[in-house]
Amino acid sequence: MSESDQLPRATRILLDGHGGDHAPNVVIEAIARLQAGKSASVEFGIVGRPNELEPILASHNLASRAEIVPATEVVEMHESPAVALRRKKDSSMHVGARLLRDGKWDAFVSGGNTGALMAIPKFILKTLAGIDRPAIASMIPAIGGRTLMLDAGANVDCSSDHLLQFAIMGSCYMQAAEGLESPRVGLLNIGSEDIKGTDVVKMAATKLKETDLNFIGNVEGTDIFRGTVDVVVCDGFVGNVALKCMEGTAEFVLHHLKSELASSMAAKAGTLFAKGALERFKAGIHPGEYNGAPLLGLNGIVVKSHGSADAYAFASAIELAHREVKSGLSARIVDAVNGWTD
Amino acid sequence: MSESDQLPRATRILLDGHGGDHAPNVVIEAIARLQAGKSASVEFGIVGRPNELEPILASHNLASRAEIVPATEVVEMHESPAVALRRKKDSSMHVGARLLRDGKWDAFVSGGNTGALMAIPKFILKTLAGIDRPAIASMIPAIGGRTLMLDAGANVDCSSDHLLQFAIMGSCYMQAAEGLESPRVGLLNIGSEDIKGTDVVKMAATKLKETDLNFIGNVEGTDIFRGTVDVVVCDGFVGNVALKCMEGTAEFVLHHLKSELASSMAAKAGTLFAKGALERFKAGIHPGEYNGAPLLGLNGIVVKSHGSADAYAFASAIELAHREVKSGLSARIVDAVNGWTD
Repeated sequence: MSESDQLPRATRILLDGHGGDHAPNVVIEAIARLQAGKSASVEFGIVGRPNELEPILASHNLASRAEIVPATEVVEMHESPAVALRRKKDSSMHVGARLLRDGKWDAFVSGGNTGALMAIPKFILKTLAGIDRPAIASMIPAIGGRTLMLDAGANVDCSSDHLLQFAIMGSCYMQAAEGLESPRVGLLNIGSEDIKGTDVVKMAATKLKETDLNFIGNVEGTDIFRGTVDVVVCDGFVGNVALKCMEGTAEFVLHHLKSELASSMAAKAGTLFAKGALERFKAGIHPGEYNGAPLLGLNGIVVKSHGSADAYAFASAIELAHREVKSGLSARIVDAVNGWTD
Repeated sequence: MSESDQLPRATRILLDGHGGDHAPNVVIEAIARLQAGKSASVEFGIVGRPNELEPILASHNLASRAEIVPATEVVEMHESPAVALRRKKDSSMHVGARLLRDGKWDAFVSGGNTGALMAIPKFILKTLAGIDRPAIASMIPAIGGRTLMLDAGANVDCSSDHLLQFAIMGSCYMQAAEGLESPRVGLLNIGSEDIKGTDVVKMAATKLKETDLNFIGNVEGTDIFRGTVDVVVCDGFVGNVALKCMEGTAEFVLHHLKSELASSMAAKAGTLFAKGALERFKAGIHPGEYNGAPLLGLNGIVVKSHGSADAYAFASAIELAHREVKSGLSARIVDAVNGWTD
């Protein structure tokens, strides 16, 4: 339905005008950045309060390049997802999800409240046939490539069937959107041996062995970064803790590095010489180009941007949504899941 | 019983001669390192196969300074803990745990198979009154200090009562061994709000609020490194994944930094100047002085050393065991747990 490469029209991407710490400014600046580059084949919409959005669009000379889609309410960043789902029917997330459901737009990108962005589109769009729960997938930089980890926080309690479905969705994603032929799928565990882990994880391993996924078995947290696995599967509690520990370690390492480099005159001189290298290094471990976490398993394409994303990072999330529209991912997931359940 | 500061004799520390990738060499080199420094107040034993241990001890002129305690069997690094527990009754771990139980030694330090080092001492020593399960505690470097995380891998499935007991043990440890007056205790979760997390975690938070621990609520993975919390509580699956993700991130960051620094001539010059700072930086994020994970909750003092520890790191684990013997930790834990359960 929304696979626009089969249609003689541009890809239509709708952006949440009120999601994220720096919206709507970074959202509109991201459009400006993408318009400057290329993308005559993409049409943009921005959903939210027209009186707030119009002046900013006009100030960027984008009034004719992005359609304003009215929505009167805003889901706050720390609002209860259940309350937002029930009470804010005219929020930008509700309006966006309904328009996606009705085929008016091909993808929805939001930097807003993660829980609400799971709950509202799930309620309105429903999940793909054969998928019980959508998952947030997070792309993590690794030596020699990148690793997709899911679920990164949508589902705190998961059954082995849920983990199996995450594995299928992650594998399909890496094929469709990243072009890998046979993505290596690993199950996040506390050791490589079959006896390790919870009953749910052990059962998931048994089921994964019966699929024709390229399942390489249990992997540990260290493997995520070593380029030895393409898709890492876990429940959303573990995935979220893992991501936050990575972020914390990177912060700590940078802090430590800065204080070490500042601690001696020789090092200070070194810092001047190495400045460019250090800047690239920081960009490499907090890579804006990896911003954008696809919400996999929904009957429609929804991408979560980091709440603190800048315009460069938000544009990356938009480009990711564009690739996903072009990739035919949804049909691939449905085919793959039905392959196991038939 | 084993609180040697109340006794007119030296602290007696027994070392596993066959635990870890580089045993027995690093174990004996660690003794040499500590003997050279100070510690007339510590007596060492090394448990294992005398024909393997004697020549190495002799080559370090330590034959008179460390007692060899015979054990004929070795638990292999990847052996099933259940099998090792049942079938290798004369392993260095079995013999060590029995001698600890009988009061012949005050502490046991091993770099061996983690699962076996939980299972065998737990079976032989039993847990402290009021503690259902021992936990592995891991000290993590943080900005401005250090954070104790437990459980780091001993218990994959935990109830809210287990998490509560971990919190009490962690708080007691930071008081007794690290000298903190009122350690801040956080519950590892995927957000700070009360509605976040699994039912087990939510129930644990409710119970923690009823204690007089300095419970600061839910914390996220990023908080571990920020110096805002002293004890972080989680189940052993989450804790192990968290630790491995930290290790993987640090590895990745170092790899990335090296390749960035090597990528330009200016950076190469910078590397020469900054070399000392980078060396200290690497030591800081893989700190040997933090080697040694106490197994808390056992009726006896057992410390796990990293399997790949060098002599310097193994010596740190021994010093940690020494501090724990001196600290009166076990009595403090029993008092604290009974305070809640009476």
